[in-house]
Amino acid sequence: MNTTEPFEPDFAKGGGIIPAVAQCHRTGRVLMLAYMNEEAWRTTLSSGRAVYFSRSRNRLWHKGEESGHVQQVHAIYLDCDRDTILLQVEQVGGAACHEGFPSCFFRRRQPDGSAQVIEEQVFDPAKVYRG
Amino acid sequence: MNTTEPFEPDFAKGGGIIPAVAQCHRTGRVLMLAYMNEEAWRTTLSSGRAVYFSRSRNRLWHKGEESGHVQQVHAIYLDCDRDTILLQVEQVGGAACHEGFPSCFFRRRQPDGSAQVIEEQVFDPAKVYRG
Repeated sequence: MNTTEPFEPDFAKGGGIIPAVAQCHRTGRVLMLAYMNEEAWRTTLSSGRAVYFSRSRNRLWHKGEESGHVQQVHAIYLDCDRDTILLQVEQVGGAACHEGFPSCFFRRRQPDGSAQVIEEQVFDPAKVYRG
Repeated sequence: MNTTEPFEPDFAKGGGIIPAVAQCHRTGRVLMLAYMNEEAWRTTLSSGRAVYFSRSRNRLWHKGEESGHVQQVHAIYLDCDRDTILLQVEQVGGAACHEGFPSCFFRRRQPDGSAQVIEEQVFDPAKVYRG
């Protein structure tokens, strides 16, 4: 079953902003979760690179704008309710996390409630981000 | 680097409710995105099964409570900001989506803006959910 109906996110459900999950298109590793508004979505589609909406900075966030670690979009999925976006991406530089790890989910919770770091750091944030 | 500091989600960041991504622990397929409040988180930890907070029903949602398609939790990750949860799960019944598909992200967006269904339906929702 394919359809030619417009297949667009329902931004209204999230008050204009809905979550977007980025996943490595090769390994399936979940890299990060961020948010998109309609402008971020449109810019992602037109540029082929992941563009999010930063809730803390209240503006578009071209992922990699500071670090150079952009995300090239390989595939886009919406969920059944069209209120979540899934991007399969190529993470340029090998690290999605601003802390220098491949994935933002680099800490696994242990049964005793502590955190285990399960990835190697790819870059030193102090050398990539300035101020 | 491991730490014995408490490693807990920061529910305050999301006004008490933060997103949780469920991923198949074997294939890496992203199955769904839902939300958790602190009670859902605690119940997930104690039961070993994914329990979410349903925003539409405004109550705990024991995933699979109607369909029997529970999610056995194999691993739990928090992201760098501790405001997103990642669960690696075994999806009992093989379908996470209430529409009967393995993943809620069963529609891939095509370059022309249309949707392509990329998975086979595992069950018929009309036979699983009653009213």
